[in-house]
Amino acid sequence: MVTVHIDRLHGSVQAPVLGSISFLNEVMGRHPGAISFAPGAPHPDTLPEADIQRHTDRFLDHVVARGSSPEQARRLLFEYGPSRGLINDIVAEALRRDHGVDVPPESYVITVGAQEAMLLVLRALFRSSEDVLAVAHPCFVGITGAARLLDIDVVGVAETADGLDLDALERACGQARAAGRTLRALYVAPDYSNPGGSRMSLDCRRRLLALAAREDLLILEDNAYGFTAAAGAALPSLKALDTERRVIHIGTFAKTAFPGARVGFVVADQRVGGSAPGEGPERLADVLATLKSMVTVNTSPLSQAVIGGMLLEHGGSLDALSRAKSALYQRNLRLLLAALDRHLGEAAPAGIRWNRPDGGFFVRVRLPVPADTALLEVSAADYGVLWTPMRQFYLDGTGDHQLRLSCSYLDPDEIEEGVRRLALFLTKETGR
Amino acid sequence: MVTVHIDRLHGSVQAPVLGSISFLNEVMGRHPGAISFAPGAPHPDTLPEADIQRHTDRFLDHVVARGSSPEQARRLLFEYGPSRGLINDIVAEALRRDHGVDVPPESYVITVGAQEAMLLVLRALFRSSEDVLAVAHPCFVGITGAARLLDIDVVGVAETADGLDLDALERACGQARAAGRTLRALYVAPDYSNPGGSRMSLDCRRRLLALAAREDLLILEDNAYGFTAAAGAALPSLKALDTERRVIHIGTFAKTAFPGARVGFVVADQRVGGSAPGEGPERLADVLATLKSMVTVNTSPLSQAVIGGMLLEHGGSLDALSRAKSALYQRNLRLLLAALDRHLGEAAPAGIRWNRPDGGFFVRVRLPVPADTALLEVSAADYGVLWTPMRQFYLDGTGDHQLRLSCSYLDPDEIEEGVRRLALFLTKETGR
Repeated sequence: MVTVHIDRLHGSVQAPVLGSISFLNEVMGRHPGAISFAPGAPHPDTLPEADIQRHTDRFLDHVVARGSSPEQARRLLFEYGPSRGLINDIVAEALRRDHGVDVPPESYVITVGAQEAMLLVLRALFRSSEDVLAVAHPCFVGITGAARLLDIDVVGVAETADGLDLDALERACGQARAAGRTLRALYVAPDYSNPGGSRMSLDCRRRLLALAAREDLLILEDNAYGFTAAAGAALPSLKALDTERRVIHIGTFAKTAFPGARVGFVVADQRVGGSAPGEGPERLADVLATLKSMVTVNTSPLSQAVIGGMLLEHGGSLDALSRAKSALYQRNLRLLLAALDRHLGEAAPAGIRWNRPDGGFFVRVRLPVPADTALLEVSAADYGVLWTPMRQFYLDGTGDHQLRLSCSYLDPDEIEEGVRRLALFLTKETGR
Repeated sequence: MVTVHIDRLHGSVQAPVLGSISFLNEVMGRHPGAISFAPGAPHPDTLPEADIQRHTDRFLDHVVARGSSPEQARRLLFEYGPSRGLINDIVAEALRRDHGVDVPPESYVITVGAQEAMLLVLRALFRSSEDVLAVAHPCFVGITGAARLLDIDVVGVAETADGLDLDALERACGQARAAGRTLRALYVAPDYSNPGGSRMSLDCRRRLLALAAREDLLILEDNAYGFTAAAGAALPSLKALDTERRVIHIGTFAKTAFPGARVGFVVADQRVGGSAPGEGPERLADVLATLKSMVTVNTSPLSQAVIGGMLLEHGGSLDALSRAKSALYQRNLRLLLAALDRHLGEAAPAGIRWNRPDGGFFVRVRLPVPADTALLEVSAADYGVLWTPMRQFYLDGTGDHQLRLSCSYLDPDEIEEGVRRLALFLTKETGR
């Protein structure tokens, strides 16, 4: 029997992340009655009615209105499509209207979720092993996973309450240069990061863009959670503030529509150097589309049609599509923070504290003891409550005294009861 | 304005392929009345009725029959799903029944088409820049593209009428060893390759497996076109003959169902070395699923449900699902070869000849002159017929005196008229 020896990726760096997620699933399987603050998945109530037909029909009407025959439109759902995507015009118009991102559809690529967008952007931008990626830290595992898959070195830059430690970013640029390397790009989720929950202030956004210009740094902006801002409280995205095409903007419909579509997008209007006009790609989006043809060929036209139809049903507005969902998550986050205050505020053992994000899905709790899998097992078995150890979101093994709570998947009564159990668990088990 | 300097990949090796496809699209756009033998896409008549709802409902019934509540089943369509896939059991059962591939569902990963499967397998298997990939040559651009994206060196091994030049493969293994490198795996499509059209004989399959065992070589088997064999004439796949788990089998529903689903799969039942039991991944499929979480997270559950429902509607049989399609392509291929005989057989200029595959989508024609983009332009503008230059399928720039004809996308009258135009074009333009 053949035994395959695989890349060292899987033996070392990879295993803890895999182990952690597997462990969570396994723990959840063994304790089906436990209340879980672990999944960062959209609330079931936000999932669309099983009326895929209505959404695809809506999209097909749009295609016919733009000049295709009904038969041509129908075929779009079933045939291969352009690597660049089918619904670029609808998405570009939504971002222009709702978010002030005025970039033509040709600079968009529709991807299999935000994850594929990250992989494509990293593959396009990172030219040699001398290039380094900076990430806001703690960091979403999707970007560090994509970097690992491509053997790209990553350096963390601390998130702060205000957004990002810009001095640390500047130092990281200098340190890379001193080592003969280049800090090529920064990955950051300025609007309620996962897992940090931080939102970058408008001033910090402006200073970050100025720093990026000084250091000739590209910015990968992940906007998965921007829609969760309270009504009227949204800040302009980095891309909306970007006057020199320094920001590559990544979005997803996993939370504003539904994850099962696996539809995301990337806005990449950067001019590509080294090609004469008419020779080779002109825009970064062209390069990403070509790379995409080597990864997934194209994003499922069927999925794109459903998402396009949902957007059109909401007047082509992302804000309209996500308004009810945003309200639900705002409510859940308020309930989670209020329950933490009520159950833990006075009586909490020393060393327990948490952040107070005003949007997003996540709250971080610091403990006086390691939030490891052994502690999670006790929490699940004896107290019936689950959470995510934060260690996997740190590059350097720190963060092991933190856990992440997600408010997104639970109902109000589950949040209340879950926090009651959590408070009991923390009081009894971490005060020693 | 920022100008981005991208990876050298795009400047050199990449550009010709991109250029060629772009050029074809562009030529087709300028000559909408031309008959095109270029697209290797499924025939529009094989695309399913726009009844996505029926197929997803069929899948949901299956899930409920296996113990889920209707609400749990419905959520499956919309939520994140396991990276490994949702329809592994249905696909594994179909391959077991129809193709004699007796591998449990846990060794399957459902991918975003065959393309993602290729990328995942290459990323898992190729451990260092010393590892080399052999490909049957001429070669599908999907595998060479994935290798290029991952910076994997590729060596071509000639296809023969019988399948593959096994002596050349053995020599390539030895040459790699002599250079201190390892020929790690061979990519081959034994059942009607794209673009070669070759089918490997049963004897050649057996000798290839024996050679792979001697040389400790893994085999990536791409089975996109196996279903096009004449009724009763199918040969066992390499995976069906594989007694020592040496074959990684890649399939797609792009041709047997429809491309717009973007659903493929990989069978990877290899044991992974270096992990103690219970520690780390045990099967190659586990590793591929983890890598997939860094590429696309999971294949759209909606797309998987449609494909699963289509399979179930055909009694869970791949053969039943693809029977009518197979007959259509058999008919088209016969018509194409008969028309070539009729219009070119006697009167063909010296140096024009073609192969006679008995399955697949493609016929190769050798010309006495270069089949380049200039010649294609003449063919389109003056004769109203399009084809694909073969050069892009060769690693070494050979193949430039060949063109590829696809029979898959055309109706019988278009094949007849197209070959009439092609014969006129070849007689007038290549006899000089």
